[in-house]
This record gives sequence, C-alpha cells and structure tokens, in this order.
Amino acid sequence: MITRIHHVGLVVQDADEALKFWRDVIGLEVTDDRVIDDQGVRGVLLKIGNSEVELLEPTREDTGVARFLETRGEGMHHLCFESDDVAKELETAASKGIELIDQSPRPGLAGMIGFLHPKSNHGVLVEFATPIEGAH
Amino acid sequence: MITRIHHVGLVVQDADEALKFWRDVIGLEVTDDRVIDDQGVRGVLLKIGNSEVELLEPTREDTGVARFLETRGEGMHHLCFESDDVAKELETAASKGIELIDQSPRPGLAGMIGFLHPKSNHGVLVEFATPIEGAH
Repeated sequence: MITRIHHVGLVVQDADEALKFWRDVIGLEVTDDRVIDDQGVRGVLLKIGNSEVELLEPTREDTGVARFLETRGEGMHHLCFESDDVAKELETAASKGIELIDQSPRPGLAGMIGFLHPKSNHGVLVEFATPIEGAH
Repeated sequence: MITRIHHVGLVVQDADEALKFWRDVIGLEVTDDRVIDDQGVRGVLLKIGNSEVELLEPTREDTGVARFLETRGEGMHHLCFESDDVAKELETAASKGIELIDQSPRPGLAGMIGFLHPKSNHGVLVEFATPIEGAH
C-alpha cells in the first residue's frame, strides 16, 4: 500500500546553483547531500512537510540522469511514493500490464526502491520506496 | 510559510486513459474531476496521504497546458506547495530575483494560487496555493 508522496525528484545541472533557489528562496531545509558513486549522481534532499524534494546532479555522463539532462534539460524527473512493500507494488503493476524498470527492489537513496517505466505511465517516471533506518 | 507538497501536476492527453493507471493500478482515490472552462483544462485530483496528484487534460488548444503537451508530451508539469500567504511567497521570490508568472494570487483549482516562472527555477514550474473551503 502506498501512503504518501515520499519525494519529487528534480534533475539539475549544478546542485549548488539549484540550492540558491530551493534552500535560499523557497526556504527548504537540506537533510542530506551526498554523492552516490555507483549511480553517478549527487543527491540532495530537502524537507517539505512529510515529503522531500530530491535534487539530482549527474556526476558522470553514462547515466539515465545525465541523459535526461542532455535531452530534456533541467526539470522534474520522477515521483516517488512510500510503500510498505515495494516488491508487491512492482508485482501488482506488472500483473496489470505496466512495464517495470526494476524487476525487484534494490537499495537506493530513499531506502529499498523500485521504478516503473514512464512509457506505461503517461510519461511519468514512478518510483516506490520503503525507507530504511538512516535513509530518507 | 510553505508547509507541504499540496499537489504534483501531470499533463495528460486523456484523463480517462490516465485514470486507468493512477486510479486502477496505483490505487489512488479520485476526489475531484471537473472542467475549468476559463483555463481550458479538465482537472482530476487524486488523494495520496495529505497531498494530491493532479491530472490536467487540455480541453482547448490555446492554453499553456495544451502547448506543454504539444511540445513536451505527457508528463510532470508543476509542483505546488501549500502556503498560508501566497502573496507573500510571490513577493519574497520576486525580491530575490525570481521571475513571476502571477504578480498576485488568483483563484485556481487548488484555492488561491500563484505561479513562479520555471526559467528562474531550474526548469521547475512552481505553484503556491492556499486552499479555500470546497477546494483541495
């Protein structure tokens, strides 16, 4: 079951520049800021109510986030919902004809995560996440 | 002050088709579904925790939503934050060099609303909303 918007993921060219808007103008508090080497991104999380805004800055060129930036430019990238059972969400979606990116949950910035393919979802990249201790 | 993600706005070609995903696969509950003639959109709201997903289907060709669909295709369109004072949010943003779409609050689907221009915000169309009775 999904219970809330966990975060909205935004692709940015330069997270420091983007923080001048999200932190300094909008006033959101940064709760995490780290480079995830194996995903080739710097991820910055900012708290808003019981959800987050996630800034994603590519740190390499061979990633989905880098390709998104190259082809679409900066902007909204994905929508993540909290679920108590990511495996079940993926299985249910697949059984209803939705194409998956992840066949099973894997560790990510938000906890245990899984993505659906945007082409089944009217252009929206949907993520499910079960937060784990120490993650957001 | 902004307190939560009020909704995430998605542009869709056909809201009935999109509901097959958001309502029937993801399982979100529809809380409102109406055509707003003066904005040229059908807006469908679906509840998720204390936020909403807003589907926007253009009903005319001469609107920003129709142009977005034409040039970018279906997908994530804007991010709306609840604020207790939309006028103040717009004023603060303008004083920090952010370009506004709305110089002052106006009535919208979510209550009294105001938009910032995405070109100041790293490609993200940001809305502020103060819900009013009967609105979401």
